[in-house]
Amino acid sequence: MADNKYVYSFGRGKAEGHGKMKDILGGKGAGLAEMTNAGLPVPPGFTISTAACGIYYQNNRSLPKEFMDQIMAALAGLEAVTGKQLGSTAEPLLVSVRSGAKFSMPGMMDTILNLGLNDDTVETLRVKTGNPRFAYDCYRRFIQMFSDVVLGVPKHDFERIIDHIKETRKVKLDTELTADDMQEMIRRFKQFVQERAGKTFPQDAREQLRLAIFAVFESWHNPRAIKYRQMNEIPDNLGTAVNVQAMVFGNMGESSGSGVGFTRNPATGAREFYGEFLTNAQGEDVVAGTRTPFKLEELQKSMPAIYDQLKAISERLEKHYRDMQDYEFTIENGVLFMLQTRNGKRTGAAAIRIACEMVDEGLISTEEAVLKVEPQQLDQLLHPVFDAGNEFKVIAKGLPASPGAAVGRIAFSSEDAVKMAEGKEKVVLVRIETTPDDIHGMEVSQGILTARGGMTSHAAVVARGMGTPCVAGSADIKINEEALTVEFPGGLVLKEGDFISLDGSKGEVYQGALKTSNPDLRSGFFGRFMALADTIRTLKVRTNADIPRDAKVAREFGAEGIGLCRTEHMFFAPDRLPHMQAMILAQTVEPRQAALQKLLPMQREDFVGIFRVMDGLPVTIRTLDPPLHEFLPKREELMVEIALMKERREAAAKIREKETLLARVEELHELNPMLGHRGCRLGITYPEITRMQARAILEAACIVKKEGVNVLPEIMIPLVGKVAELENQRALVIDEAKQVFQEQGIEVPYMVGTMIEIPRAALTAGAIAGVAEFFSFGTNDLTQTTFGYSRDDAGRFIRAYLEQGILEKDPFQAIDRDGVGLLLKMAVEQGRATRPKLKVGICGEHGGEPSSVEFCHMIGLDYVSCSPYRVPIARLAAAQAVASGRAEKGTQQK
Amino acid sequence: MADNKYVYSFGRGKAEGHGKMKDILGGKGAGLAEMTNAGLPVPPGFTISTAACGIYYQNNRSLPKEFMDQIMAALAGLEAVTGKQLGSTAEPLLVSVRSGAKFSMPGMMDTILNLGLNDDTVETLRVKTGNPRFAYDCYRRFIQMFSDVVLGVPKHDFERIIDHIKETRKVKLDTELTADDMQEMIRRFKQFVQERAGKTFPQDAREQLRLAIFAVFESWHNPRAIKYRQMNEIPDNLGTAVNVQAMVFGNMGESSGSGVGFTRNPATGAREFYGEFLTNAQGEDVVAGTRTPFKLEELQKSMPAIYDQLKAISERLEKHYRDMQDYEFTIENGVLFMLQTRNGKRTGAAAIRIACEMVDEGLISTEEAVLKVEPQQLDQLLHPVFDAGNEFKVIAKGLPASPGAAVGRIAFSSEDAVKMAEGKEKVVLVRIETTPDDIHGMEVSQGILTARGGMTSHAAVVARGMGTPCVAGSADIKINEEALTVEFPGGLVLKEGDFISLDGSKGEVYQGALKTSNPDLRSGFFGRFMALADTIRTLKVRTNADIPRDAKVAREFGAEGIGLCRTEHMFFAPDRLPHMQAMILAQTVEPRQAALQKLLPMQREDFVGIFRVMDGLPVTIRTLDPPLHEFLPKREELMVEIALMKERREAAAKIREKETLLARVEELHELNPMLGHRGCRLGITYPEITRMQARAILEAACIVKKEGVNVLPEIMIPLVGKVAELENQRALVIDEAKQVFQEQGIEVPYMVGTMIEIPRAALTAGAIAGVAEFFSFGTNDLTQTTFGYSRDDAGRFIRAYLEQGILEKDPFQAIDRDGVGLLLKMAVEQGRATRPKLKVGICGEHGGEPSSVEFCHMIGLDYVSCSPYRVPIARLAAAQAVASGRAEKGTQQK
Repeated sequence: MADNKYVYSFGRGKAEGHGKMKDILGGKGAGLAEMTNAGLPVPPGFTISTAACGIYYQNNRSLPKEFMDQIMAALAGLEAVTGKQLGSTAEPLLVSVRSGAKFSMPGMMDTILNLGLNDDTVETLRVKTGNPRFAYDCYRRFIQMFSDVVLGVPKHDFERIIDHIKETRKVKLDTELTADDMQEMIRRFKQFVQERAGKTFPQDAREQLRLAIFAVFESWHNPRAIKYRQMNEIPDNLGTAVNVQAMVFGNMGESSGSGVGFTRNPATGAREFYGEFLTNAQGEDVVAGTRTPFKLEELQKSMPAIYDQLKAISERLEKHYRDMQDYEFTIENGVLFMLQTRNGKRTGAAAIRIACEMVDEGLISTEEAVLKVEPQQLDQLLHPVFDAGNEFKVIAKGLPASPGAAVGRIAFSSEDAVKMAEGKEKVVLVRIETTPDDIHGMEVSQGILTARGGMTSHAAVVARGMGTPCVAGSADIKINEEALTVEFPGGLVLKEGDFISLDGSKGEVYQGALKTSNPDLRSGFFGRFMALADTIRTLKVRTNADIPRDAKVAREFGAEGIGLCRTEHMFFAPDRLPHMQAMILAQTVEPRQAALQKLLPMQREDFVGIFRVMDGLPVTIRTLDPPLHEFLPKREELMVEIALMKERREAAAKIREKETLLARVEELHELNPMLGHRGCRLGITYPEITRMQARAILEAACIVKKEGVNVLPEIMIPLVGKVAELENQRALVIDEAKQVFQEQGIEVPYMVGTMIEIPRAALTAGAIAGVAEFFSFGTNDLTQTTFGYSRDDAGRFIRAYLEQGILEKDPFQAIDRDGVGLLLKMAVEQGRATRPKLKVGICGEHGGEPSSVEFCHMIGLDYVSCSPYRVPIARLAAAQAVASGRAEKGTQQK
Repeated sequence: MADNKYVYSFGRGKAEGHGKMKDILGGKGAGLAEMTNAGLPVPPGFTISTAACGIYYQNNRSLPKEFMDQIMAALAGLEAVTGKQLGSTAEPLLVSVRSGAKFSMPGMMDTILNLGLNDDTVETLRVKTGNPRFAYDCYRRFIQMFSDVVLGVPKHDFERIIDHIKETRKVKLDTELTADDMQEMIRRFKQFVQERAGKTFPQDAREQLRLAIFAVFESWHNPRAIKYRQMNEIPDNLGTAVNVQAMVFGNMGESSGSGVGFTRNPATGAREFYGEFLTNAQGEDVVAGTRTPFKLEELQKSMPAIYDQLKAISERLEKHYRDMQDYEFTIENGVLFMLQTRNGKRTGAAAIRIACEMVDEGLISTEEAVLKVEPQQLDQLLHPVFDAGNEFKVIAKGLPASPGAAVGRIAFSSEDAVKMAEGKEKVVLVRIETTPDDIHGMEVSQGILTARGGMTSHAAVVARGMGTPCVAGSADIKINEEALTVEFPGGLVLKEGDFISLDGSKGEVYQGALKTSNPDLRSGFFGRFMALADTIRTLKVRTNADIPRDAKVAREFGAEGIGLCRTEHMFFAPDRLPHMQAMILAQTVEPRQAALQKLLPMQREDFVGIFRVMDGLPVTIRTLDPPLHEFLPKREELMVEIALMKERREAAAKIREKETLLARVEELHELNPMLGHRGCRLGITYPEITRMQARAILEAACIVKKEGVNVLPEIMIPLVGKVAELENQRALVIDEAKQVFQEQGIEVPYMVGTMIEIPRAALTAGAIAGVAEFFSFGTNDLTQTTFGYSRDDAGRFIRAYLEQGILEKDPFQAIDRDGVGLLLKMAVEQGRATRPKLKVGICGEHGGEPSSVEFCHMIGLDYVSCSPYRVPIARLAAAQAVASGRAEKGTQQK
């Protein structure tokens, strides 16, 4: 193609462009060319390239003569093909003029229909259609649209004229207006344009076309288009193409019509010819719902030839595009035209069925099949959903923190939740925020709603782990824990025991008890599809699980090990908390060790349970991580309590006891606990804690090994920033291991590795890999420190940042590749430089988020680990990373 | 030198080694060789190289024959030089055997004196000295020392034998024992060795030597040596050399003696021959203080030739080593021997005088002079110090958070401090921790003592800025704010109004009111020395100052601009806080803007004052940084107050008012405020704050420019992590600037730049430099996030980490080069890649710490900025970075 070619014609089965030319023709232009070349009956037209848009701006907002000559030549070609002429009163050509950039910018730029109408051609249209009202309606709409886009007279301002005519005629609906009314409207519209724009509405159709093309170029720089590009990171210099295409009309009478079709059923995925159709109607009438469309079967009766043609096209479209298509068509006087086709939206269930069956049919490869399902769509298949028939009254919104539908009675505390659940009630726990104290309340609840906290708040993380639906950070609800009420934005107040429903996939809260249905995995497509994905992925997928129940669920979902078992969650159980507190309150080593001795057998039992479930798979166990004050009563509550005890002159001894407790709580109090005395810092200052935990893990490993279980423990030290920290903790673990193996008379292979979760660890990963047998990225913490965002607090400004476009994505949801991601890359490279076979994984929340999984694959991680219900999503995302080939690009990038 | 040479002799003015051979000869051996070569009278001997130590371990803990041959050859040479023979009864040679590694490891390894004594040679010694008691005392000490080091019989176990003999003789002191008693002691010692070691005490002097050499090699691997190397990062494989040297005795009679000398006065720096001497004494007697030594002038009378010889040697030593020397000498029977010389320790005042005068004398270059003063020594010259005559009773220790001596009466609250100060009392403020509320109490106090917080806690930072002495984080004191008492570790309880003294340079607390003296800068050496430093440094030094008073002090100390002016400190003043609180409590933009309008003229006045003081120098002003809740009452205090009001059934309206306040405080409450809604996050969510501040700065700039002041404002946006944040804030500043310049009818050049204080900013510095006109590293915050350490909380485990050697230095004091430093380097490189002339500085606390200043020079920063009293230290450190030449090494390293 010549370099100076700027206009590309299409029509009569042949196009000068093709589907891969999106850079030059824009998405729509490339699609029209592709369909034309495929032999589909597409109304003819031509596309003015995106390059012309750039030249339009460079050339002081007009086009050099050679460009206009090319356009006029293409127009002449179009006139020849259609046998009509723009502006002719004999055979007037009407065209649509539409924008079309490389990347879809839906609704951002302008469109003009019915261009070519003027005071003369409208009369021809009237005569040819025998429908004066239709002809005049087209013309008055064209005046409105053209004036709005080209002349800067807002569309809305014409509405007052319409209202005035309706008043005069004493009618209410547009449809009640007659052809005469329309003529009157046209007269007044033109007069209004004259007043407002200071010029006569252009009657010359070629002039109309020139102005419309320039207006589309201008729309590239309208404010909403600029904003949209900023938000979607679309470069400003791409420009838009302009598509000029002959109009076709489905509303020309009983042998005309419009419809939409699908190559397969978008709800079920079944392979069937499926769609809807309306006689004597334009496309928008089918969608608008004012008339009820027929099924396509009706078309078979009324226009059998057209039906057969359409069915054949439908099959060709799917073969051509190698995907289920959603297309629009129009029949003009018994002639079928295809207006658009695109990959059809579909439910999760349909997506996996279509993918599997297209592979069976030999239509697509496994790689293509894997890319046809959005990982998030799998969620629909794993959790209960609300039935479509419900009346959804949204009473509050929050973050979609853990997917699924939940219905239950409101409980405001974990104790009440437990009591209500014992009474066989279904419960939804409603809290300002949850803390580790709430675990038992959360366990018995159907769903969780919090007023504070982000996607990685305690409630969100634990709920996802349990597979319990959760809406978090619903900032506008007001919880009154004393009155046991919650007030919702519109003023609605619900009380304890009232029914409420949550959609954790959407982050919505509804009043009352909606109907739900359970996921249907019986069809078998789910298992088949996941097996397809597994054949191509290279990244392993593990799970984050703290208890055997969760581990079992995850294993059923395909987890290939545990990537993170948090030992501290075990300490919040009511039988353990007192010992944990005694351990913390101990001022010297002896009582601390006594308390730890009580915890040892309990921890050992936990690990025995998990090891049995994970027989043959690796289990990564993290030593104690959270700051100790999390296990003690809240400081401010104690302060209030003591102040009140004093005011009430209670017994001095009782007050002293509370004061002693407060004193220790004050000692442990930290202004920024996230950056405080936690992780390996605890294990270093209290080595007996690490020893106890190492012993519990390794004793459990010996016990199950004697039962014949294949146990692969990996002991993980959290929050390491200096290699000396890991050396210290590793030495304690190795020392305990020697003792345990001697006592048990058996040895178990085990590894000692570390979390990489603070920037310094990533920056000095080369040194740390000298001591660590594996790395696991704790991207929650790493994101907190790399950004300086507390995940507990940052929700407020992160939301503002997303709204203002300062952040494109919440970095706690998708790995920030430029910052956090750079640290991960550095750590992998430096770590493997020291220890080439270093095993590297990720156990932050990102391990279950598709774009993050892709990134993990790109930088060469061995595995991702995520909450049980995200395991299938991660498996698919890992397969897609291979299938999309972006992996290679990513690793080459460096 | 042959590769297989392992033994290096020295003596009679000639040594086989020299002073630069520390790798091979160890520090001591190299020094002995150097002095010998310099023609000084050093007792002859030889050094066995560090390489032999390695071979000793490789060779299964012995030395191959060729090594022993080299040692015996060296011994033969030594015997020839001295005319004595090891083990000879005619002329017995006695030697010392000492370790000596490349790096000084004081007291870590072993030493044996008087080797060569046995039952026979001791008799010769007795006859030759005519002093039986001396001879036998030497022998019994040798047995003890040798048995301890070589035979593994602890020295201490011999004490029981000594005690028993003293009991039998009914005497109390060793000196009361006679020669006969010593002989008895020798007999019993040998018997004890036989019993405990299972072998006879070796009588063969050559065997003694062989065993002693091996024992010194062994001592390289004793536990305290290993620990010391770990802590000081000395490689384990260096090994130690062994020095074998002829003994000389200063206690051979009246023509013998020992002394120490200095080439200049170590207290004042005056050029004078200065030292002390004792007749008939060993070196340790001079130091021990049991006898009072004479001044060297006495020696001139008793031994004039020796005196002249020593004086000449003293002059030669200084010229040779190009530094003030502190040396030890012994006179044995009228012959002078030099035993050691080293660079002498000196006071700060002496250091600068010596440096200046040595340059004047043409002895050293400016570069050498600059390296002769420890930057920290300047501190002594800038702050009051306690007089040496005080009785220092340390009652508590803490961190040396802000240097200088302070004396005052205890106040437990800022209000009380202000009241007491108004009553003309000197006050020391004692608080658990300080908050911005305490500013006024801190301003009126002589010193500040806190129980909590590290070197960069609020108290420490503010105190250093004010030049007020501060001891921070004295964790063992217990403050009772109700009883107005403080309990110190030993149980001592002081109450309000009691006198207390603090040494903020040492981190010590003393009881009572100690005497202090003020710094003497009148001598003029201070100014001369700083001018020397300034001639060679390239790094600029600015100051962190928030108010004109501090800026003035800093300018007098040589600051070349303000690197950090914190605008928020201004908001805590009592006339401003209400407006600040009104601004925060505002729920909508209008009342917020009204409050800001009240703050605007006040801020403008602040900046006018600062700009006037800094006429001609740049002033970097940071927009609002801290989280808003810092300006509101404390959450827990409000909770207690409300609980009590309810208990007391106070008026509902009053309670409601408090509850409304608490609700807003709760809204702003953050679990980790350091990672919360602060810095530019505030300026983005409340753009009107940034606008007000930009306006105040630029209006002030216009006002002073009209007065003829040369004003150079640099507006700095804090806590940027994404370039979009800076773009947002910069646009606001530029917009305000345009308005202000139009209103004022004048323009002022200004810059907009950013702090680089969170890892993501450093990691994406290339993009940020596209928008920032300058970078300033906020290494306090950057250290917090890179390590994941809260500077408010981390004191507890950082101390444990330092004790255990997990951290070598507190990273909040000295820049952590491997982690934080790597981020700085990356940011400088990427920033300058985008904008080659990017101005880069540092305004964290590290800007005044010498090793950090050196690092800043190495990575190519333009300036450092530090608190006013640290400006001279930074100037010197910057000069030393050039003088030491490590700069080149550093930048090449990359």
